[in-house]
Amino acid sequence: MGVITFIREKKCIEVPDGTTILEAEIQAGFCPDAPCGGQGKCGKCLVKMGHQIVKACQMKVQGEIEVDTLISDQKHAILTEGLNRPVAFKPGLFVHKIRLEKAEPGDNRSDWERLVTEIREASGLEMPEVKVNIPLAGSLYERRKEEEFWYAIHTRDAVLDLKKAKPDVYMAAFDIGTTTVVGYLLSAENGKVCAIESSMNPQAQYGADVIMRANYALEHGTEVLSNCIQGAVNELLQKLAARVKAQPDAICQVSIVGNTCMHHLFLGISPGSLVHAPYNPACSERLTLRAADYGLHIHPQAQLLMLPDIAGYVGADTCGCLLALRQDLKSEISLMIDIGTNGEMVLGNKDKLATCSTAAGPAFEGAKIECGMRGAAGAVDHVAFEDGEWKYTTVGNVPAVGLCGSGLIDLVAQLYKAGLIDEMGHLESGQERSDIFVLVPPEKAGDDRGVYLTQKDVREVQLAKAAIAAGIQLLMKELGIREKDIQKVYIAGAFGNYMNPASACAIGLLPPELEQRVEPVGNAAGEGAKIALLNVDELEATDSMVKGICFLELAASAEFQDTFVDELAFPEED
Amino acid sequence: MGVITFIREKKCIEVPDGTTILEAEIQAGFCPDAPCGGQGKCGKCLVKMGHQIVKACQMKVQGEIEVDTLISDQKHAILTEGLNRPVAFKPGLFVHKIRLEKAEPGDNRSDWERLVTEIREASGLEMPEVKVNIPLAGSLYERRKEEEFWYAIHTRDAVLDLKKAKPDVYMAAFDIGTTTVVGYLLSAENGKVCAIESSMNPQAQYGADVIMRANYALEHGTEVLSNCIQGAVNELLQKLAARVKAQPDAICQVSIVGNTCMHHLFLGISPGSLVHAPYNPACSERLTLRAADYGLHIHPQAQLLMLPDIAGYVGADTCGCLLALRQDLKSEISLMIDIGTNGEMVLGNKDKLATCSTAAGPAFEGAKIECGMRGAAGAVDHVAFEDGEWKYTTVGNVPAVGLCGSGLIDLVAQLYKAGLIDEMGHLESGQERSDIFVLVPPEKAGDDRGVYLTQKDVREVQLAKAAIAAGIQLLMKELGIREKDIQKVYIAGAFGNYMNPASACAIGLLPPELEQRVEPVGNAAGEGAKIALLNVDELEATDSMVKGICFLELAASAEFQDTFVDELAFPEED
Repeated sequence: MGVITFIREKKCIEVPDGTTILEAEIQAGFCPDAPCGGQGKCGKCLVKMGHQIVKACQMKVQGEIEVDTLISDQKHAILTEGLNRPVAFKPGLFVHKIRLEKAEPGDNRSDWERLVTEIREASGLEMPEVKVNIPLAGSLYERRKEEEFWYAIHTRDAVLDLKKAKPDVYMAAFDIGTTTVVGYLLSAENGKVCAIESSMNPQAQYGADVIMRANYALEHGTEVLSNCIQGAVNELLQKLAARVKAQPDAICQVSIVGNTCMHHLFLGISPGSLVHAPYNPACSERLTLRAADYGLHIHPQAQLLMLPDIAGYVGADTCGCLLALRQDLKSEISLMIDIGTNGEMVLGNKDKLATCSTAAGPAFEGAKIECGMRGAAGAVDHVAFEDGEWKYTTVGNVPAVGLCGSGLIDLVAQLYKAGLIDEMGHLESGQERSDIFVLVPPEKAGDDRGVYLTQKDVREVQLAKAAIAAGIQLLMKELGIREKDIQKVYIAGAFGNYMNPASACAIGLLPPELEQRVEPVGNAAGEGAKIALLNVDELEATDSMVKGICFLELAASAEFQDTFVDELAFPEED
Repeated sequence: MGVITFIREKKCIEVPDGTTILEAEIQAGFCPDAPCGGQGKCGKCLVKMGHQIVKACQMKVQGEIEVDTLISDQKHAILTEGLNRPVAFKPGLFVHKIRLEKAEPGDNRSDWERLVTEIREASGLEMPEVKVNIPLAGSLYERRKEEEFWYAIHTRDAVLDLKKAKPDVYMAAFDIGTTTVVGYLLSAENGKVCAIESSMNPQAQYGADVIMRANYALEHGTEVLSNCIQGAVNELLQKLAARVKAQPDAICQVSIVGNTCMHHLFLGISPGSLVHAPYNPACSERLTLRAADYGLHIHPQAQLLMLPDIAGYVGADTCGCLLALRQDLKSEISLMIDIGTNGEMVLGNKDKLATCSTAAGPAFEGAKIECGMRGAAGAVDHVAFEDGEWKYTTVGNVPAVGLCGSGLIDLVAQLYKAGLIDEMGHLESGQERSDIFVLVPPEKAGDDRGVYLTQKDVREVQLAKAAIAAGIQLLMKELGIREKDIQKVYIAGAFGNYMNPASACAIGLLPPELEQRVEPVGNAAGEGAKIALLNVDELEATDSMVKGICFLELAASAEFQDTFVDELAFPEED
């Protein structure tokens, strides 16, 4: 056994011989950044041993060692805001005051049947099929002796609980992203958002993107990753309850959106079918489950609503975006793009909707870019070249330490405009090393590396933007429409929220004609998860939305490959 | 700690100080007969310590003792046969061969959806709402790689499993009686009964009748009794599977009938509401549950079908009898009586059915009768007085040791005919002690007590038969019919099966006019449990049967008290 002491966290654990420092960090419960999954490739898991900086994934614990994880405890900037489409407050979770009475002589209905009748009358709901809650039915006799009036917490087909005092009941909506998890606590009484909590997705330890996670699951079983994300959601639920000084069991309904891989892993389903052709989900139906069966320690009878997936790589998160935007109800033709590691997009209007997913790669999230980073403190998030001078801002206004997605495309766009990158993506910086552009020299940066862009980084940006641009082209072709027909471009997700539309159009990520029609919609997926709780008709509408949408499978499409190659170049200036 | 050695069973256990021998017997896993629930009243739990016979419930284990439990290992005669009403074989459990294929390109349905489509096509069933089996959905990708063709075990709304080889699938029907439990194993392929197993209801340790059981549950919690009966059903399931050399997980559907108390206790529901006015069940609906949630270690996805209860003391067992007889479909007016500790009865035809339950007490099951016993070896089961001579037969043709129900009513009827009991029930035996009638003197009996009837025993018979007779009268009054209108009297249950109709009519248990119309129908409740598995339409018909039946609550009825008192006397000879 080896012994490792984490100086920064003041924690010491024993680990078996042969354990890497990265594995030890995970065992200790930390969230190291290891986008390559511990393969020694990404260089993001650096730690300090004595005066030496080493890759945590490549160094084994031997004897007794001391390590500085360098993990900042500064909060990452996680996008929790979305557009607020007003929906009627018509939740599927109710609290009604009812009376528990002894049956009249001659009334041979069961206690349960009389309870359901009371609830039907109090709520005015039809409730044609109410599932028998056996333990609750068995408690009615004792409850009746205790108290005459009770508050029933119920849905249209289940009675969750009876309380003596009027309970504060909550619902929680989750957006499980590959990188981050956001949870919203909503009052079941008025639908107001009472608290928001977010965290990194702790699965990031096992790889940055869904492919790495899926591979990890296929190699080591899904359980580790399932427990990991269920645990994270559970922890956020506990925090959300604490924020309103409620017990966790006040939360009686949870909705979840996420991409198909997050969806499958949350449910404990192997992502095997997702990563091999024909890339179909194992199950994609909208589900109503028992939260307790998925590691969520809230009300023991709480419902877990999983929004439906649309296709193998168009998940419930896209369904959430659709629910937030309801493109299917509008006459205007709109394009929605949720830019993450994958770019999922939906184009169309009430007549027809088409969707596809393109593997943009993690460049816009800071991975695979030499100075790339998440949108955390010190990330360059905007870059301008004005009057011959390079200007930039950073998250948190602290000295720069890296480039996040929005800063990256600004920089590439400005370099292209300035002629330092040509149409084919060749970088000629004119600096000391011409295949590198130094934006922030080490002496002005927050660390001793500085912030710069490499030729390889430009290639990564080209691959990412070409994937999305090609997806847009193919959707337009499918619907027989052109750029000018698209009245709105909704950009969902954190990157979309911070990115400069002019830069996105300048590098050809979006068609230049659409620059003025771009509207960031923030965390639309999370917004959809909220709407699913706020209005039961909206929730149920997802079934037909999913059935009605035309899915373009791009992975096997020769036409996609063609268009993708065409889109690799940067667009000519008008 | 004390140490107790059970000589007969060759078993030795340690028990805490203060444990009674009865409690030790229960801990050791035996089934002592303790109808009074260990109150020292019934004297049925006798054991031998050295040369002394003691009540096991009154004697505490101190130090090291040796005990002979006197528990016979001879099988009790448990009625497992019922009438066989032919029903079409249309079960709700299916096996169909299906193909697991990769999706065609462009087919973005989930693996699960394609599986359900395959099953729909193979079975020709509509299956409008199939619940997603998440672990199974998650396994489809791996299964598809392993094998192309699979056998799906499914119902109309659930897919339980997929097997590579054609599986032998079974269903099991249970009648949980207060005294005995009977299980039937049925092939899901052809509906044939493949095995029958029965056991005593081990709850008998905690009291003979439902009232005692309910009181025990109210005092000590329902868990002990629930675990006890779930364990007994599970053990029978294991035995049933072993009888056909199958693994227990070949059993994929279980149906259960039982009186409301057995029903509630099996489900872990407190019987509180059943034993206090207005005597309503906590829940009475027909239920489809997961067998695994109720301690049944068969197929992990096996369904548990609980037939509905009709009213507080007219349980799912009566529903089973109705399913076996379908009085609700017939023009002929018939009376069905299931005589146990309670006498549940149903009168009527397709136009109207009425039901009630009367507390007959356990006399016909051998309890509260001084020489009473269950229908086990040595029980006098038939008595005749011919040519001035008393003749009798015993179960198993062994020397007599007691009186079971059928022997008891024969004896009372013969004594009444012989003038040794008068109309008011006064016993004048003319023997050495005139308030006792000795049928079998100690020297001819199987033990040194002999078999006799006391004045108090006659009173018990009067109370029991008056309760049933009064119930019949009130049902007739409710429907406005008379004895002559009743074309058939179906007697269900073990006692009904062995009882002599002439004796039953002679003592006024049944109206004398109906003697020729009596037909024993055996374990009709168990038959109903089988039918529920054999034909899904019949199972579903129970919902409307239960709703349509008129229930007479006798407990609070002054009219019942009147009629009951009238019926206490023995009928005048015609």
